[in-house]
Amino acid sequence: MSDMMMWVPLFGVVALLFAFWRTSWISKQDEGSDTMKKIGKHISVGAMAFLKAEYRILAIFIVVVAILLAVANRGGDMTYLVSLSFIVGALASGLAGYLGMRVATKANYRTAQAARSGLAKALNVAFAGGSVMGLSVVGLGVLGLGGLFLVYTPMFPDMSMRLSVLSGFSLGASSIALFARVGGGIYTKAADVGADLVGKVEAGIPEDHPLNPATIADNVGDNVGDVAGMGADLFESYVGSIVGSMVLGATIYVGSNLATEFVYLPLLIAAVGILVSIAGTFMVSVKEGGDPQRGLNIGEFGSSGVMVVIMFFMITTMLPETFSLGGVEYSNLGVFWATTIGLAAGLGIGFVTEHYTGTNTGPVTSIVNQSQTGAATNLIAGLGVGMQSTAFPVLIIAASIMGAFHFAGLYGIAMAALGMLANTGMQLAIDAYGPISDNAGGIAEMAQLPAEVRERTDKLDAVGNTTAAVGKGFAIGSAALTALALFAAFRTTVEALRGGPGTLNINITDATVMAGLFVGGMLPFLFSSMAMGAVGRAAMAMIGEVRRQFKDIPELTAALKVMNKYKEGQKMSDEDQKTFDAADGKAEYGKCVTISTEAAIKEMMLPGLLAISTPVVVGYLFGAEALGGLLAGVTVTGVLMAIFQSNAGGAWDNAKKMVENGVEINGIKYGKGSDVHKAAVVGDTVGDPFKDTSGPALNILIKLMSVVSLVIAPLIATIGF
Amino acid sequence: MSDMMMWVPLFGVVALLFAFWRTSWISKQDEGSDTMKKIGKHISVGAMAFLKAEYRILAIFIVVVAILLAVANRGGDMTYLVSLSFIVGALASGLAGYLGMRVATKANYRTAQAARSGLAKALNVAFAGGSVMGLSVVGLGVLGLGGLFLVYTPMFPDMSMRLSVLSGFSLGASSIALFARVGGGIYTKAADVGADLVGKVEAGIPEDHPLNPATIADNVGDNVGDVAGMGADLFESYVGSIVGSMVLGATIYVGSNLATEFVYLPLLIAAVGILVSIAGTFMVSVKEGGDPQRGLNIGEFGSSGVMVVIMFFMITTMLPETFSLGGVEYSNLGVFWATTIGLAAGLGIGFVTEHYTGTNTGPVTSIVNQSQTGAATNLIAGLGVGMQSTAFPVLIIAASIMGAFHFAGLYGIAMAALGMLANTGMQLAIDAYGPISDNAGGIAEMAQLPAEVRERTDKLDAVGNTTAAVGKGFAIGSAALTALALFAAFRTTVEALRGGPGTLNINITDATVMAGLFVGGMLPFLFSSMAMGAVGRAAMAMIGEVRRQFKDIPELTAALKVMNKYKEGQKMSDEDQKTFDAADGKAEYGKCVTISTEAAIKEMMLPGLLAISTPVVVGYLFGAEALGGLLAGVTVTGVLMAIFQSNAGGAWDNAKKMVENGVEINGIKYGKGSDVHKAAVVGDTVGDPFKDTSGPALNILIKLMSVVSLVIAPLIATIGF
Repeated sequence: MSDMMMWVPLFGVVALLFAFWRTSWISKQDEGSDTMKKIGKHISVGAMAFLKAEYRILAIFIVVVAILLAVANRGGDMTYLVSLSFIVGALASGLAGYLGMRVATKANYRTAQAARSGLAKALNVAFAGGSVMGLSVVGLGVLGLGGLFLVYTPMFPDMSMRLSVLSGFSLGASSIALFARVGGGIYTKAADVGADLVGKVEAGIPEDHPLNPATIADNVGDNVGDVAGMGADLFESYVGSIVGSMVLGATIYVGSNLATEFVYLPLLIAAVGILVSIAGTFMVSVKEGGDPQRGLNIGEFGSSGVMVVIMFFMITTMLPETFSLGGVEYSNLGVFWATTIGLAAGLGIGFVTEHYTGTNTGPVTSIVNQSQTGAATNLIAGLGVGMQSTAFPVLIIAASIMGAFHFAGLYGIAMAALGMLANTGMQLAIDAYGPISDNAGGIAEMAQLPAEVRERTDKLDAVGNTTAAVGKGFAIGSAALTALALFAAFRTTVEALRGGPGTLNINITDATVMAGLFVGGMLPFLFSSMAMGAVGRAAMAMIGEVRRQFKDIPELTAALKVMNKYKEGQKMSDEDQKTFDAADGKAEYGKCVTISTEAAIKEMMLPGLLAISTPVVVGYLFGAEALGGLLAGVTVTGVLMAIFQSNAGGAWDNAKKMVENGVEINGIKYGKGSDVHKAAVVGDTVGDPFKDTSGPALNILIKLMSVVSLVIAPLIATIGF
Repeated sequence: MSDMMMWVPLFGVVALLFAFWRTSWISKQDEGSDTMKKIGKHISVGAMAFLKAEYRILAIFIVVVAILLAVANRGGDMTYLVSLSFIVGALASGLAGYLGMRVATKANYRTAQAARSGLAKALNVAFAGGSVMGLSVVGLGVLGLGGLFLVYTPMFPDMSMRLSVLSGFSLGASSIALFARVGGGIYTKAADVGADLVGKVEAGIPEDHPLNPATIADNVGDNVGDVAGMGADLFESYVGSIVGSMVLGATIYVGSNLATEFVYLPLLIAAVGILVSIAGTFMVSVKEGGDPQRGLNIGEFGSSGVMVVIMFFMITTMLPETFSLGGVEYSNLGVFWATTIGLAAGLGIGFVTEHYTGTNTGPVTSIVNQSQTGAATNLIAGLGVGMQSTAFPVLIIAASIMGAFHFAGLYGIAMAALGMLANTGMQLAIDAYGPISDNAGGIAEMAQLPAEVRERTDKLDAVGNTTAAVGKGFAIGSAALTALALFAAFRTTVEALRGGPGTLNINITDATVMAGLFVGGMLPFLFSSMAMGAVGRAAMAMIGEVRRQFKDIPELTAALKVMNKYKEGQKMSDEDQKTFDAADGKAEYGKCVTISTEAAIKEMMLPGLLAISTPVVVGYLFGAEALGGLLAGVTVTGVLMAIFQSNAGGAWDNAKKMVENGVEINGIKYGKGSDVHKAAVVGDTVGDPFKDTSGPALNILIKLMSVVSLVIAPLIATIGF
């Protein structure tokens, strides 16, 4: 089977070629009016400026960490090459973010233009943008991991050492992902909260209105947060689950020989998954008048189904019928079941997510009802819903851990995570399509296109909601299982160096393990508080700047005054219209973009460094047992806080949308502008940093800490022993 | 030393005699005007009605659990007597709540009356009330545990079996405590939120105004939540830490003999602590013109200092110079150091609490500043502060675990918890004095006493704030360490039955342990969501009732209309004054009391049963390892969520108070009624169920789950082995 490994990088190349082909197709689409082009350009320049500023800082970080890794691993065994893996992983992650964002900022205004002629055409453009992101991510992952594996094969005949060096790739991907998620999250929410609070609430202008100086920053934020941030996030999950299962595969013996097929299998499944994802993107395409939801469903669930069948054949033909792991006999069919358990868990969590955050569901309606007595009860209800929503996902995760372990030991847990992520290319295409449609809507608004265009883009955005909820379920479930797989990989690596199974006993009732567990459990709280504090500070700066412009730029002041004289939809007098038009383009968008960029770059450093350095410090000072406790603590509370925050945020968001669409509570009707709406807006604003900054960043945090531990495992294996 | 155990119950009797003596002193104090008597009576009747309704339900629960315990432990060895211990523990807890509440509802209006003549006199009455609560709690604890121990000594010559049966006492105390805390918390916050939202915000009448139908319920709530709830809480901590350290003490050998002095020591320290607490109450008494803060400080820190010295002599004279535990040699001085570490940790956490929640501190000021942009930013800031505030306490707890273990093994961890709680009598006296002063203020308001009376009671309340923050630190720190001690006791009990140390290996990387850890970690989230949901529902019912009365009772409607014509302090016309006076006593307080009572009783059941049944179900179905994971998970996230919620709530509360006293943000002044104030009120309202319902209940949850596990340990020891 090792011959087949030769071809793995080729699949990555295929994915990238596909991505380039779709990109050039998008470039050929109609760009629309000059105003649209101008707005589109504003957004893409802002987004690229952020990426450039971010990467400049990260370059320093990469160089420093690479040197540290090389020095720590110096010696005759060439393991210092782990820093090469790290650099390649970091570059691949950065490149994936760049490619995805470039195409997203091309596709957004072209989608708005396409929406002028029809829904289906807009869907095709937006989805093409998403699929470029998706295929870039999996392509770079498979190319990078597969390529490095080939390079390292002759250098490190010992499989564990080879994988140990390879794990640096995952570390590179994870650290960039964390910075991208945190930075992007801060950027997008600072702009969003700032634009909303001064623009919508204080000045009374609609969302995405060109008079609002923060509106470009807001739309840039959607790209850096939801597209680049999410891309980096899934890239690291994808890579992490592959690396985790490869390392665990390297502990499996058939007779007295290492069964290398268990090591190869994860990478081969990922490679084949690329073809399935490409096929999946073709299923989505709809004709005018067709049902876009159906297209997405077929793409999502159809390709997942195909993937299950393919995995069944790959697992049963490539793996030996029975094998032994940790002293227990398992069958290859068990590995397949573990994979299926992962998929089922992802779907299950997705449906629970939908239940707790979807419009008109019981929990979200309860938030709406409790908004009648004001913001305080809206918030109490939302916090309650978020906390409650952790119950079923955690039970599902616990059951999958036990189930996957039952069927295939620790390897089963890793393969369960891989099962969820084999179809990442397609999944990410659907996820990234949402923010592109959202952006298109913003551009339609700013360019003052006819109302039906905005309606179409809103519909496009809404269509992706259920699939996006399922995607969230996969993200959370796979993060938990990937972190556990990496954790198990850390344990087996330490045990291999200590002399075999059972030499690392992370017994909860030991004082050091318990102390590690407490400190680890605290980190997601501290990390979230840093992220929320950063959003708060950045939003305050943004609010100050928008207020300043409204006061200091005479054209804006005049236009705002004029605007508030009229109700929505009412026609202005000619003179007023002139005053109003005079303000067009006077808002200094660039200043707001700069504020968001600088705040995001500055504020992402501390939480990022905290995440990376804590396992190193704990591992060196207190040993592998304490580090094990730390990882368990951070994983458990990280998963809980991620679900709590994401779902509370999602529920508040949709509660607000429900009120905006008009609701009836105890026989009284409420809509936009009512007191109930104001209460719901407060909840939504609180939920913003929850669901888009700290919540998703926690998914990365838990994997990053595990992968840091895995990489430093050889260095600390004998401490505290 | 076993002779000394004979005398232990006597110390309990002394405490109770002291409590009766103070009670009769309070009864002799001036009751004030007829109005005050009437209001006082309203409150005490409401409080007793709640207690009666609560105890009626709990009686059924106690009988059912006692039967289940007896049946599960049936057989020839008389271990079914664990259900006797359970009943005695439950009754003692209930009695402590009853005694404390009875005296608190006697002391509140007498304190208001005393405040008419001076601050010192009011302090003495209020503190006498608190000291009755404090001494009742420790008296019943020592009497109950000491008495049962004597009874069981001849029946169970085997020490582990004797302690195993005795542990039922702790289970009884813990289960009653959980119901009392949850029920009391729901009661007080439903009344508080309801009174505030309709009374203050909608109708515009001041707090504690007699026109507000929910105002009596609000004051009853302070008694059932802050007095009875807290008393039951500390009773169970106190008992839990004694039982935990006794069980762990029974694993210590000197040579080949069980060193029973380690078992006796905790109870003896508790007994002597009673005398120190009584002495401490005398230190508090101040003369007119004296500094009340100084009195409390001397009482609190003076008696703690005395306790440390006494513990030093008891430990060094009673324990052998060296002993062996878990294969390691420790010294008796090590036990003393472990105790001191506990005390230092409690103080440290207290100071951190004060930093994150006190008025004019950095974090609280940051919340005030972020209130300038509205409720949403106030909330984001508060949530961030709460999350951040977990960091140092958790680091302190982790360090104490490692330190105490280093000095005296698992016994050291238990003794660290005991060290914090040895002075419970005094600590609780100070804690309970706060709500009594608060109630006195409410009564002064309702009875329309001169403004200076309210000022004095406000000052009294404020004086206790720092000591109360320290008390909170002790509550959280001791909850964590007590839970760990009980957890360790669970482990040693299971290991003893399985055949010795090392037979229960709760290895975090095992699939079942990890699954247990996840589920355990989730429970505090689910539990909090239940508590918050309950408060939300009960508050809505209360709001509905208050609105109804304002609409349906013509005198109230008229008086409200009149009242809103005048600004605060303005004099009414004679006719208006007549209309206003006509409304006096027309509000149907009883209906609001009934709503709070019924809601509290109904809503406390599900979370309570969840807490008690989960360890049983997990233990029986998945075995001791999974249960170990569950306990670790619930302890870690329970402690984190408790700190997060309590401190966020405390910070919001004081941020609001800062605004009410007038603040300056960016050169602009804000005070009562400003937009900043409105934003701060929203934060405070959200914080109410956080800090007074779910937060404190979590402290009990973690201990309860550990003690349930300890009690069922003999029954499940061989499951999953």
